[in-house]
Amino acid sequence: MEMLLRQSRAVCPFLKKTSPSALRALSTSSSTTSHVAGIAGGKMSNLQVLARRCPVMGKALAVQSARNGMNSVTSRIGGIRAGGLSPPAAQRRSYVVPTKAANLQSTRKVEAMASSLEDVHMKAGIFDTSKGICPHGAAAMKAAKAAADLTAAAEHKLTVFQNTTDGKKAKFDYEGFYYNELDKKHKDKSYRYFNNINRLAEEFPRAHMATQADKVTVWCSNDYLGMGRNEHVLQTMHKTLDTYGAGAGGTRNISGHNQHAVGLERTLARLHSKQAALVFSSCYVANDATLATLGSKLPNCVILSDSMNHASMIQGIRHSGAKKMVFKHNDLADLEAKLASLPPEVPKIIAFESVYSMCGSVGPIKEICDLADKYGAITFLDEVHAVGMYGPTGAGVAEHLDFEAHAAGRPRGTVMDRVDIITGTLGKAYGCVGGYIAGSSLLIDTIRSLAPGFIFTTSLPPAIMAGAKTAIEYQMTYAGDRRMQQIHTREVKEELNSRDIPVIPNPSHIVPLLVGNAELAKKASDRLLDVHGIYVQAINYPTVPVGQERLRITPTPGHTAEFQEHLYEAIEDVWTTLEIPRTSDWAAKGGHVGVGVPVPERIENIWTDEQLGIEKDVEEINREEKAFADMIMDSIAKKGTGKTKDMMMHSGADVSAVAAEAAKTVEIGA
Amino acid sequence: MEMLLRQSRAVCPFLKKTSPSALRALSTSSSTTSHVAGIAGGKMSNLQVLARRCPVMGKALAVQSARNGMNSVTSRIGGIRAGGLSPPAAQRRSYVVPTKAANLQSTRKVEAMASSLEDVHMKAGIFDTSKGICPHGAAAMKAAKAAADLTAAAEHKLTVFQNTTDGKKAKFDYEGFYYNELDKKHKDKSYRYFNNINRLAEEFPRAHMATQADKVTVWCSNDYLGMGRNEHVLQTMHKTLDTYGAGAGGTRNISGHNQHAVGLERTLARLHSKQAALVFSSCYVANDATLATLGSKLPNCVILSDSMNHASMIQGIRHSGAKKMVFKHNDLADLEAKLASLPPEVPKIIAFESVYSMCGSVGPIKEICDLADKYGAITFLDEVHAVGMYGPTGAGVAEHLDFEAHAAGRPRGTVMDRVDIITGTLGKAYGCVGGYIAGSSLLIDTIRSLAPGFIFTTSLPPAIMAGAKTAIEYQMTYAGDRRMQQIHTREVKEELNSRDIPVIPNPSHIVPLLVGNAELAKKASDRLLDVHGIYVQAINYPTVPVGQERLRITPTPGHTAEFQEHLYEAIEDVWTTLEIPRTSDWAAKGGHVGVGVPVPERIENIWTDEQLGIEKDVEEINREEKAFADMIMDSIAKKGTGKTKDMMMHSGADVSAVAAEAAKTVEIGA
Repeated sequence: MEMLLRQSRAVCPFLKKTSPSALRALSTSSSTTSHVAGIAGGKMSNLQVLARRCPVMGKALAVQSARNGMNSVTSRIGGIRAGGLSPPAAQRRSYVVPTKAANLQSTRKVEAMASSLEDVHMKAGIFDTSKGICPHGAAAMKAAKAAADLTAAAEHKLTVFQNTTDGKKAKFDYEGFYYNELDKKHKDKSYRYFNNINRLAEEFPRAHMATQADKVTVWCSNDYLGMGRNEHVLQTMHKTLDTYGAGAGGTRNISGHNQHAVGLERTLARLHSKQAALVFSSCYVANDATLATLGSKLPNCVILSDSMNHASMIQGIRHSGAKKMVFKHNDLADLEAKLASLPPEVPKIIAFESVYSMCGSVGPIKEICDLADKYGAITFLDEVHAVGMYGPTGAGVAEHLDFEAHAAGRPRGTVMDRVDIITGTLGKAYGCVGGYIAGSSLLIDTIRSLAPGFIFTTSLPPAIMAGAKTAIEYQMTYAGDRRMQQIHTREVKEELNSRDIPVIPNPSHIVPLLVGNAELAKKASDRLLDVHGIYVQAINYPTVPVGQERLRITPTPGHTAEFQEHLYEAIEDVWTTLEIPRTSDWAAKGGHVGVGVPVPERIENIWTDEQLGIEKDVEEINREEKAFADMIMDSIAKKGTGKTKDMMMHSGADVSAVAAEAAKTVEIGA
Repeated sequence: MEMLLRQSRAVCPFLKKTSPSALRALSTSSSTTSHVAGIAGGKMSNLQVLARRCPVMGKALAVQSARNGMNSVTSRIGGIRAGGLSPPAAQRRSYVVPTKAANLQSTRKVEAMASSLEDVHMKAGIFDTSKGICPHGAAAMKAAKAAADLTAAAEHKLTVFQNTTDGKKAKFDYEGFYYNELDKKHKDKSYRYFNNINRLAEEFPRAHMATQADKVTVWCSNDYLGMGRNEHVLQTMHKTLDTYGAGAGGTRNISGHNQHAVGLERTLARLHSKQAALVFSSCYVANDATLATLGSKLPNCVILSDSMNHASMIQGIRHSGAKKMVFKHNDLADLEAKLASLPPEVPKIIAFESVYSMCGSVGPIKEICDLADKYGAITFLDEVHAVGMYGPTGAGVAEHLDFEAHAAGRPRGTVMDRVDIITGTLGKAYGCVGGYIAGSSLLIDTIRSLAPGFIFTTSLPPAIMAGAKTAIEYQMTYAGDRRMQQIHTREVKEELNSRDIPVIPNPSHIVPLLVGNAELAKKASDRLLDVHGIYVQAINYPTVPVGQERLRITPTPGHTAEFQEHLYEAIEDVWTTLEIPRTSDWAAKGGHVGVGVPVPERIENIWTDEQLGIEKDVEEINREEKAFADMIMDSIAKKGTGKTKDMMMHSGADVSAVAAEAAKTVEIGA
């Protein structure tokens, strides 16, 4: 039996990943499980429920079941969902503490299961054992989770049943409520299954899954430039960790303010050519706290919000209690009509993004600044997906719009200069974690002084702040990573378009592939992972609207030709196997989300050919720029940024001018 | 002149810390500044404004001013605040870009200032140059900030004036609004000045200020146990950083879920003997997101909130939109009356804390669980200041209440087992950053699936999660740090009480000293820092009510006898010099906030003498436990926690039983 179990575990990734004790618990016909089975008639352990859901085992058991005349799993689950549980009493939580007798019984069941499992696997022969990946592994793990939920819910319902029948007044059924909320998500396919992805610093963009041997290529990380494994960033973090320890040890007001916070905020102010900046735990918190504070404090404030704004802004606006007016995505006429409807003296905030993460569209920043000036509004621009990625110093799309001026160190009067509040993240292109806002000294000091989400929370660790500062400074002086990222993005978009794969058109670094169906998107993601070892998460509601489900691909400088070829072949297989509509299919229906539309809008990429130096040999650019960047980093390490003038590649940015400008910045609490 | 400047900078820490260019900018009588000075008559640079606020220079200049018949600074500032600015036009932001002419002029002024500064310092002779600390340094830096704010505001008001007089309709004055909000805080003394504190891992509990030579002892950090510099934690973080890089690279759903998240959440569930746990960016976010989600989703939910709850819970309740009932702090009768007023079937959440951070009081957890059971409510317990600090495995006060049962690995039926939702932090006793909730699988999965503050934010970095996990596991098996912390707390409380210093009585590890006045509390904090090199932040409104301002001292295991002696002498000096009321003074008035009350409530410490092994020699305990802990850590490193049974010190905790219990935990998305 030992032997049989070992063999079974060698072929089935589910058995392999699950400990014997967990298997035993799953296979136990515990008191609760007995009742569950009891409703539908017959007995069934959780392991059997799981096996039924496995595409390999399911078929085998169905045959066996037909032979034995057993009821199908579906009818059992239906029975539980209908909620008609019968007594008797089940001990709360008893399902996690199987009795010894149950263990003995279950051991026999596991062995029987393993035996038939092995048999079926051997016959099926559809998986690659050398790779250790089996197409039904992930599904089985997820089914295990769902089954456990069902069991817990069923058990709880029983408790409630007893509650309500013992003569006392009914109390609210909290666990039943949770179950129902989750059940809704299972039913509308918006329930999220997390993939265990461990990105490997030395093998970027590769990662391992739950086991170290199980490697995949990550094609959907927001570590867009691979700064999470940049040696300068890591060196800074190691050093800071040794000198200043793991955590900040307090809020900014109580022992958590330090030179790392001061230095990082100074660098951020300098990056955006603003007077000051303020760092938060995340940009979710930065957006939420800033909009909630401004919206609640500014008298009668109205917030005008782009319809595709990120959840953090939507929450911040909601939390502010201010009046909210949603304008159509990137629609200046709609925005102006709404602005014009408001009295001039009423404070107004226009909240929008530069790069919209899920579709890659780009906000008309200059034009929105014009409207803000005209109607006396202030602008709140989320550059979360753009910082590090655009502009001569990586300050974002607003900087990119005046590429030459910023490259020459002349920020005054530019679009970026006109934006009142810029928010960004340290957790995507800068490879660390945290968020920030940048703006005037008085604005920053006001948020610093009033926003509970800033005041009452522990500062980011010194090593994180120091690492993020290094990442920003590196990207301020070296444009090679973001240029290579753009070149790879162009290559992927062009190749997929040429293969009739529906890329949602956009001018940025995001490559969204339209699927248009939640279940299909998930299947596509699962197949990419399970069959091809490529990780691209499916993006479903509520992150995108229903019917616009997609795969969101984010190329990085590390996704070289070899990785790209692998991706193209995998996508071809997935689109063919799952019969996902291609661009021509969407075109036949008149187009959808910009894909296959009869007269497509002309898309101008944010990075022009000239800015990318597209005529030069890419490898050569990369080598050159790396050498320059190293020299600049050395120079910074030795004597600060004062002497780096004219060392900026191609863009010709005058770093010392930027630094001098920053030196004038008024700082908070230094 | 060069020589004179150099000499001045050697004696004055303000001049020393401020760069020549910043000094030049400050001393510039810029266009705006000219107008400012113009109102009150005469001319005055920002540097002069600062000098007036310096306790040393101020006197010297007052004498000079009296001689010259100049107006006082006070009247000038009054003039600006009254807002009566006269034109003509000032270029926006011009104050940060002084002209060359102004620079020349200002250079002369700086030299003159420096000359008289040196003169006064030499005569005053009240500072210790060997230490590099001068009593007016910090004040001058803060005054610089305030002056810059005033300048910016004055400049902006001018712009607005022009706006409103050029015939167009007035737009909202955003910068003026910010200025007014800040001005209110300056006036009510709630404006916060951050101290630049760089805690040194190898010299815990020492830190350096802006310069490395300027060292102080930190007595107010929430790194209660010094885990921020624990070698096991740091080793784990270094290793994880090298293997997995700086950041997670995405949200939990999109490439940011990994073995570190899975492992940390498993450990947290095990720590609290719950089915599951969920990690957030911070416990502020955990509390906010969980209460907002539950309160908004549970139909007609009512949240009963302790009147002294933390801001994060208050925000979460507000954001939920649910009905809120505030019960008096720790008042069971009031809570029961409110619960009884609600129908049984209405969902209710009782939100409260175990250790209230600012006063050190402790919630009646068991009794609140009883009420929750009686009235069909669920309990939401914030253990942020208690995790790592109480209980045989550091799970908090709820665990501590059944010390023996948990030590023996029998969590079922205990108070902790009865609490529905426990929230905690990784950023205080565990020395890192981040927060979490622990509870039933269905609850955790519901929050995981519905809370925007969890869903739409980048995961914590792998190194942070791995470091926090190590810290928790270390504290699960080693009780020496928290016991030593308690012993030091007792020593500090006893000594200060014996000196008639007003310690607000409480049973926990917080040592709050009542000052009762915002300005005085800040002065006390400043004097401790500037004169004694001891950092204890003043706690003012809105963190505590007006009239209850305090110094909040947090001893750690590192605050040994030598540091304590230093603290006692410094506190004596500060209380005497600033004439802060002592316990006997409060007693004469009938007592205040528990200090000097005629018949004091009997306070039972959470950690009993027996639990602390108080009869044993402390040094001996420490040595013994360190040896055991190292052995346990080695054992864990070699073969997991399975074999550590009976190795738990004094408490006799059965770690393997805890581990076995945890193995049964249903996990999310593994």
